[in-house]
Amino acid sequence: MKGFFRVQTPDELYKKIVRFKPLSIERISIEKSLHRILAEDVTSSINLPEFPRSTVDGFALKAKDTYGTSEKNPAILQMVGEIPMGQVSTIEVKDGEAVKVATGGMVPNGTDAVEMVEYTEWVDSHTLHVFKPLSPLENVIQVGEDVKAGEVVLHQGHWVRPQDIGLMAAIGKYDAHVFLRPRVAIISSGDEIVPIDTIPKPGEIRDINRYTICSMVEETEGIPLFLGIAKDHFNALKEKIELGLKEADMVVITGGSSVGTLDLTQEVLQSFSKTEIMAHGISIRPGKPTLLAEIDGKPFLGLPGHPISAMVIFHLFGKPILKILSGLSKEEIWHQRKLKAKASRNIPSVAGREDYIRVKLEKREGHLWAHPIFGKSGVISNLVNADGLLKIGINEEGLEEGEEAEVILL
Amino acid sequence: MKGFFRVQTPDELYKKIVRFKPLSIERISIEKSLHRILAEDVTSSINLPEFPRSTVDGFALKAKDTYGTSEKNPAILQMVGEIPMGQVSTIEVKDGEAVKVATGGMVPNGTDAVEMVEYTEWVDSHTLHVFKPLSPLENVIQVGEDVKAGEVVLHQGHWVRPQDIGLMAAIGKYDAHVFLRPRVAIISSGDEIVPIDTIPKPGEIRDINRYTICSMVEETEGIPLFLGIAKDHFNALKEKIELGLKEADMVVITGGSSVGTLDLTQEVLQSFSKTEIMAHGISIRPGKPTLLAEIDGKPFLGLPGHPISAMVIFHLFGKPILKILSGLSKEEIWHQRKLKAKASRNIPSVAGREDYIRVKLEKREGHLWAHPIFGKSGVISNLVNADGLLKIGINEEGLEEGEEAEVILL
Repeated sequence: MKGFFRVQTPDELYKKIVRFKPLSIERISIEKSLHRILAEDVTSSINLPEFPRSTVDGFALKAKDTYGTSEKNPAILQMVGEIPMGQVSTIEVKDGEAVKVATGGMVPNGTDAVEMVEYTEWVDSHTLHVFKPLSPLENVIQVGEDVKAGEVVLHQGHWVRPQDIGLMAAIGKYDAHVFLRPRVAIISSGDEIVPIDTIPKPGEIRDINRYTICSMVEETEGIPLFLGIAKDHFNALKEKIELGLKEADMVVITGGSSVGTLDLTQEVLQSFSKTEIMAHGISIRPGKPTLLAEIDGKPFLGLPGHPISAMVIFHLFGKPILKILSGLSKEEIWHQRKLKAKASRNIPSVAGREDYIRVKLEKREGHLWAHPIFGKSGVISNLVNADGLLKIGINEEGLEEGEEAEVILL
Repeated sequence: MKGFFRVQTPDELYKKIVRFKPLSIERISIEKSLHRILAEDVTSSINLPEFPRSTVDGFALKAKDTYGTSEKNPAILQMVGEIPMGQVSTIEVKDGEAVKVATGGMVPNGTDAVEMVEYTEWVDSHTLHVFKPLSPLENVIQVGEDVKAGEVVLHQGHWVRPQDIGLMAAIGKYDAHVFLRPRVAIISSGDEIVPIDTIPKPGEIRDINRYTICSMVEETEGIPLFLGIAKDHFNALKEKIELGLKEADMVVITGGSSVGTLDLTQEVLQSFSKTEIMAHGISIRPGKPTLLAEIDGKPFLGLPGHPISAMVIFHLFGKPILKILSGLSKEEIWHQRKLKAKASRNIPSVAGREDYIRVKLEKREGHLWAHPIFGKSGVISNLVNADGLLKIGINEEGLEEGEEAEVILL
């Protein structure tokens, strides 16, 4: 049953994963929609503002009454009323008249500008001096100036931020269609892996991957479902993977990094009727022994057992897949927080492989420098101490000291 | 009861808010600890690894047996066993012997290096040719090389990331002390404000601030408690603020931006016995009419009613206060996602005031350009369309086209 597979490049794999589709849709209160993904274009049915509003505290008037005024030559206006906040103005203002209005208040009929209170002076309780010439519409937001009725204000695939919730509130949209959050089944495998509240016997190690991968899923707005530790045997693996495919939208297994384990996992996958192996090995370091498959439309990701390799691969491939299932727009799926930094020393690499080097960043002499974190690939501490992953491209043979490269922030 | 208050600069206010203290502590499973703040220094009681581990698939041996070898002149070693993953090695390896070991497997007694399988060749089922000279400890992680027993691996005040949870899992720490998440009472005020599922009468507007401020609290890992809309009257405000102080760790009110409302809120605060007004007005735009107070040890933030002003002020002052209550370390409280960009045109400002201009970012000619978003300060849509807030410092009189300034990303 074993096939022969060519190791894939990261870019080949990125092109393949766009085949996955967003999950179905639910309707939720906008109050619950922070960081969810819109499954609809949001269209405003109203104008914003719905009435002309003042942007300042002052006096609504006809702009033409202020033409040619100055401190020495004020216009003299009759105060004919005040518009309390939240109330309709029924006043019809005539030439030579003014009405008191607060910031956000309605600008009454007949007026077309608002003079700021700073440029006025009371003559008596009914008469006002106005010093500053205004043009029509000055200090007034017109009906529909913020949002026009019929306008699409947010698009499907948008990741909802506080200001977007505010905009939906403003147009009276109190619930929204969003994509379901993907459920991700997570399985740890390996005969040497024990639960973390167990004291490992010599040769055994605690199950770190359960915690790192579950929390990376959480961070990407997915719902992690941990299914336990499977021994490295066909039946144990098959049982867990079957459960995962049944209960979740995506299955992630972390396992032995040796070729044997990869082959065993692949055998299990091929025992299902609708399996397509998309990659068996990626030209990347760390994380070469990675398995990616589609099983009956659902993504399956087999990560190396080494915790750092598993995190790097989940970051580079697992998160984009999860974002696709989440319905995120194409532009945002590939978004990474990253910056450019100079290598603080020569870093060797090999052409034909993408390398991700754990680095600490330091600002010095106006430049950002990336220091590779030395030491053998420890279990986890060197990822805790890193600020980011410096990328050495697949066609590069390493970086020279001072050369600039991209660093993905962790 | 009204005092006279000098408008404060943002920096004066930042110095004042450090007086607030983190809340109390709870103990939770590390599984639930993503993005919580550690309330303890985490010390490892064990060495990591706890046994010497191989970093490659290969053969454990004595390095000295490989000295001087080459493809033409291999060493000949006797295979004396294999160490299955997760099992203890009881083998005592002697000169001229080797033991098969997988990545992560235990390196047995008597050996000090691991030859990668690529540099070996079987002669017969018990005899191996080894081509590549190794130095002692090559391809072996020694006991404690990743983490040493007694080492502090994470510090109090640290914001927990997936890799940190992984490290705690690795050292067998299955629960951790974290600070309680701050509860933040949120009150909307203003006679013109109506709930968003109501159709506003002319002059009324929907309660946008409830949604933006609640979700900004959520984004900062606080727990928002919305207490409703208060009318602009002493008793209505007092009742809600009293409830907020009882139920929550911080109270935020968004309200009329006019001086009258600010004074009214301040009167309410001063009717409590232990109130200190920390600021009544900030030299900032947008958001000048802001009120900050300490009431019986709890922070009270009165935000302008304009949704964009309220969001900007909550971002600049509310979030740092919330982070202080959350127990975050001093270095991380002031952290903002920001970058440098050039102004795409002249932007006027006034010395003596910090300005935050909503901008869109564009990459052009190798530089990042910030385009101010035109139009009057609309209700909310221009914040939705902005990528960030460009800062014009308090001593600057504006920016010239091409001048570089800091942009806080939204």
